Amino acid sequence: MTQINLNADMGESFGAYTMGADDVLLDSVKSANIACGFHAGDPVVMQTTVKNALAKSVSLGAHPGFPDLQGFGRRPMQMSINELYALMTYQVGALMGVAQSNGGRVTHVKPHGALNNMACEDSDMSDAICKAVKDMDKDLIFLAPALSELSAAAKRAGLCVAEEIFADRAYSDTGSLVNRKVKGSVIHDPETCLNRVLDMIEKGGLVTVEGKVLPCDIHSICVHGDTPAACDTAAFILQGLKKNGLEVLSLEAMKASSSLGL
Amino acid sequence: MTQINLNADMGESFGAYTMGADDVLLDSVKSANIACGFHAGDPVVMQTTVKNALAKSVSLGAHPGFPDLQGFGRRPMQMSINELYALMTYQVGALMGVAQSNGGRVTHVKPHGALNNMACEDSDMSDAICKAVKDMDKDLIFLAPALSELSAAAKRAGLCVAEEIFADRAYSDTGSLVNRKVKGSVIHDPETCLNRVLDMIEKGGLVTVEGKVLPCDIHSICVHGDTPAACDTAAFILQGLKKNGLEVLSLEAMKASSSLGL
Amino acid sequence: MTQINLNADMGESFGAYTMGADDVLLDSVKSANIACGFHAGDPVVMQTTVKNALAKSVSLGAHPGFPDLQGFGRRPMQMSINELYALMTYQVGALMGVAQSNGGRVTHVKPHGALNNMACEDSDMSDAICKAVKDMDKDLIFLAPALSELSAAAKRAGLCVAEEIFADRAYSDTGSLVNRKVKGSVIHDPETCLNRVLDMIEKGGLVTVEGKVLPCDIHSICVHGDTPAACDTAAFILQGLKKNGLEVLSLEAMKASSSLGL
Amino acid sequence: MTQINLNADMGESFGAYTMGADDVLLDSVKSANIACGFHAGDPVVMQTTVKNALAKSVSLGAHPGFPDLQGFGRRPMQMSINELYALMTYQVGALMGVAQSNGGRVTHVKPHGALNNMACEDSDMSDAICKAVKDMDKDLIFLAPALSELSAAAKRAGLCVAEEIFADRAYSDTGSLVNRKVKGSVIHDPETCLNRVLDMIEKGGLVTVEGKVLPCDIHSICVHGDTPAACDTAAFILQGLKKNGLEVLSLEAMKASSSLGL
Repeated sequence: MTQINLNADMGESFGAYTMGADDVLLDSVKSANIACGFHAGDPVVMQTTVKNALAKSVSLGAHPGFPDLQGFGRRPMQMSINELYALMTYQVGALMGVAQSNGGRVTHVKPHGALNNMACEDSDMSDAICKAVKDMDKDLIFLAPALSELSAAAKRAGLCVAEEIFADRAYSDTGSLVNRKVKGSVIHDPETCLNRVLDMIEKGGLVTVEGKVLPCDIHSICVHGDTPAACDTAAFILQGLKKNGLEVLSLEAMKASSSLGL
Repeated sequence: MTQINLNADMGESFGAYTMGADDVLLDSVKSANIACGFHAGDPVVMQTTVKNALAKSVSLGAHPGFPDLQGFGRRPMQMSINELYALMTYQVGALMGVAQSNGGRVTHVKPHGALNNMACEDSDMSDAICKAVKDMDKDLIFLAPALSELSAAAKRAGLCVAEEIFADRAYSDTGSLVNRKVKGSVIHDPETCLNRVLDMIEKGGLVTVEGKVLPCDIHSICVHGDTPAACDTAAFILQGLKKNGLEVLSLEAMKASSSLGL
Repeated sequence: MTQINLNADMGESFGAYTMGADDVLLDSVKSANIACGFHAGDPVVMQTTVKNALAKSVSLGAHPGFPDLQGFGRRPMQMSINELYALMTYQVGALMGVAQSNGGRVTHVKPHGALNNMACEDSDMSDAICKAVKDMDKDLIFLAPALSELSAAAKRAGLCVAEEIFADRAYSDTGSLVNRKVKGSVIHDPETCLNRVLDMIEKGGLVTVEGKVLPCDIHSICVHGDTPAACDTAAFILQGLKKNGLEVLSLEAMKASSSLGL
Repeated sequence: MTQINLNADMGESFGAYTMGADDVLLDSVKSANIACGFHAGDPVVMQTTVKNALAKSVSLGAHPGFPDLQGFGRRPMQMSINELYALMTYQVGALMGVAQSNGGRVTHVKPHGALNNMACEDSDMSDAICKAVKDMDKDLIFLAPALSELSAAAKRAGLCVAEEIFADRAYSDTGSLVNRKVKGSVIHDPETCLNRVLDMIEKGGLVTVEGKVLPCDIHSICVHGDTPAACDTAAFILQGLKKNGLEVLSLEAMKASSSLGL
């Protein structure tokens, strides 16, 4: 039976500010990308998120971002290779500390926002990011967009790579996401999302807006939980994947089953 | 031969701002308390400090503080038990991540500034801090002022405790440090510092300004490195300890020799 | 006709994080206390809040707080008199800059959270805060809890003072707010809130939980807008005040009518 | 007699961290660009810097930067036009507040680091920055590198513009600064610095590394004070300008004498 993972970003609340419906989303996803305090999240939020994820057997991933809380890590910043490397080890380590205090373990890493987007097109950045992860713990799974520089760099670094597709975003013919500002680039209908996902899994690649298929591995599906509707979509996709005979697992379990690259 | 440790706070530079002469100080001390990015330090500074400490076989300690860079962690802040616990796991974890990426390991923890001072007199705070450390890694050494609530809490938590005295600070009859604003509370002459330290080690306790001896274990001596003179004092104390037949080791080595509490 | 003001805290969103329903609340209140970027708010949020307040003829007040976004300015911090003075001039100035760029003017100041609470019981803090405001612009109105040290300090400084009562909080016999954790300390029913307010205005003083009356001036009523229900309460109080023959004005207008102290 | 201004960046210390020798530098320069707390500086540092500048009759300028203390505002960040506008009004306003509390007045604005560099080549950014300044106070002087987009935008906005040259940096034929990494791009010898400045003033334009002259107005000379040597250079240039018959004034005084653009 084909195995697949469902992941989402989480723990993006901060102090008195709430973001996302993590509790609901944790019932659908199998792996959580947890903000590490730079673009979102704080030590208390991280403790809560880790506890809740562990309680629901959702595997823990670090979701490091640019040091830009005001911009939610979405504003491009130019940092040196050294700074990027250090930023990764600090944030991933911080989540490891929080996980450890709860008897848990960080098993994957996925960069956030502008850090992720920039690295997806810049091999120097990607190499620095992946080297940091590899140097910390060579057994960490690197979760990266399928066909990105980041995914390529993770493979070069010898990391176990999980390639993800987005359930609710349109792809261009280059394999990149169509800009959010373009009409139709974000898909809101749960059924359309599910069908796209099933279509891409069946065809073994990204299906672009022009209908082209870009062959790639698909290990994980990224869903969102910032609105109640998004949580419903996540739940709908989970059910749909199961009904269609897919086994939905954590990244950790997939790695143990040798279902991930490397 | 009696074993003793020499420790100092380090890695307190931030971005373009330099503080302390860490490179010089690393030649004298055996254990470094490294700032974790909240009161001082940043990911790049932490990487550099860890690398330099490892190169000189100085053992690595986390030096977490209040989230107050502007106040250098010296301004008292009122945080809940939950917040204190989370703050500890985040910062200690962050340094663990940085250490791990360099093939090193964090072996002790010592809180900074107002966090340390407040905890030294508040058992609830101390218990929260020590529980966080214990939950992360029960083998971590807790470095605490001799006769403090923090030292007592670390023992209650079952942690291996290293009790420290200050080479350059006067003690009151309650065992607390005399306020910096009081004349004579900070000792600048290297020879006076050394003699005080040797006197306390010989007498097996804190020697107060009134000449009283408060019996306690003395595992480590805290020195400072914020000025060139302070670095000279540290070097002078190191030589003096050796000349007087003491073996000066890292906290890690002392623990391995069963020279620490527990 | 008796004049009265209705004020509320606003502009407490930050970056991607939303807090409060400012747009709705601006239809009820006459003066806005706008967060200045330390405990909440950011430059973009401040621009938006100022624009919206000006559009609805709500007068602009600065709402400076401790530099503690994670704690929303609610955690007590110990700062020196110098630091408090500087913190006030920076934050009030920042809002003045934002107001100025929109053709508006900051006409009052009200400290936030722990800064306000601590100052209400500490005359040194209060004097530093009020001196900062006075030194910036002697014509600024200082909005302070009735019978507090802060109100007394503002008078000592020669500032025009607006004394406020809380519509939804119980008072103890000392004139301080009953701790939020005590049952009944926060009043949720709009009608009860309104009746309390009318009762205190009629009796000319704070009415405590034991039924005692502590005589004081009442220039303004503080309402909250963090929940839809709170916004409804604010609207209900506004209507109730009008129905009972009170004229509800901005602090600026009240000062112009000589209805404020000094 | 030809009038000229000497300016320098100041107030870039932060909390316990010291940067630059402002006290010495204030004896040479006539206008200070004071950091506003985003890339450097804090409310206490700003108070001190303003007081010291006023005591030495040095005119006050706001020196706003990107919100990036760790990167000292030198790392390019991508912000929207809205964010740039708001960032300017906040920071300039904050310094105005600090100045006002000391009976002083901000009379010019000069952006810092990456914000300045990016705006010098991007007219949209420049227009947003200059519009913010104009909207706050149309009488503010805008201090910008000669021949830059920023200088052009300030003129478009109708602001009074002071065009500056750098005493210690080499210019390329496009009028931009030669990258710091290129050998010879930073000039350390005080006499060479002075001669270059006198040469450019005489020729009425930037003199490039290839010896070309790019005609422009020269109202101000920017010097640095981050090292004792830099302070000496500033003092040497001041003396040299005077000896060569130039009148060295604050920007404010030059504007009053109609020696600035507009």
